[in-house]
Amino acid sequence: MSLIVAGTYRLPPQNVEALKPHAAAMVAASRAEEGCIEYSHAEDATEPGLMRFFEIWRDQACLDAHYKAPHMPVWRAAGDGLGVHDRRIFVYDIAGQRQL
Amino acid sequence: MSLIVAGTYRLPPQNVEALKPHAAAMVAASRAEEGCIEYSHAEDATEPGLMRFFEIWRDQACLDAHYKAPHMPVWRAAGDGLGVHDRRIFVYDIAGQRQL
Repeated sequence: MSLIVAGTYRLPPQNVEALKPHAAAMVAASRAEEGCIEYSHAEDATEPGLMRFFEIWRDQACLDAHYKAPHMPVWRAAGDGLGVHDRRIFVYDIAGQRQL
Repeated sequence: MSLIVAGTYRLPPQNVEALKPHAAAMVAASRAEEGCIEYSHAEDATEPGLMRFFEIWRDQACLDAHYKAPHMPVWRAAGDGLGVHDRRIFVYDIAGQRQL
C-alpha cells in the first residue's frame, strides 16, 4: 500500500530563503530515490516560517530506506543550523486515489 | 473514511504576495467548515509561483459541502484575477494514520 507522508516544521522567517537551496538539494535527491512518487517542501501562505512537506512513497520499505539515505543527515544538519524546530511528521496509508 | 485532498496550482510569482490575503480568508473559512481536519496553502520552496494545498476531511459528504461553500467562488475569482491556472486536485482515501 502506498503512503503519504505529510507534516510541518518551523524556523525563523528570516531564515527561509537561506534554507531553500538546502531544501532544493534534498528534494532532488529524494525524488531520485526508489519508490518516491511525490516529494515537496513549501512555505505556508498564511504563516511565515511554517514549512510544509508532502511526500508519496510506493511502500513502507521505500520510506524506511529514505530515512537512511545519506542526504538526510546533511539536510537535518543544515536545518538545525538555521533554527529548524518543532518537526511533526504524519504517515497515512492510502487505500485509493483519484484526480478531480 | 477520511480523505486527503492535495494538489497544486500556478500563478505568476510576482502575484503570490497579492494572493496571500485571499488565501488566508479562504483557509480560515474552510477550517471553520464541518468536518475540516486540516487545510493549508503553501508556496513551493523550490519553484516560485507553484502553490500547494493540503486538506483532510472527515468524509466525502463534508468535502462535497466544501465545494459548495459560499467562500469558494470568491476565492476562485480572486485567483483568476491574479493569473491562477493549471489547477490539479487529487483525492486520497485514508485507511490508517500514525505520527512518527
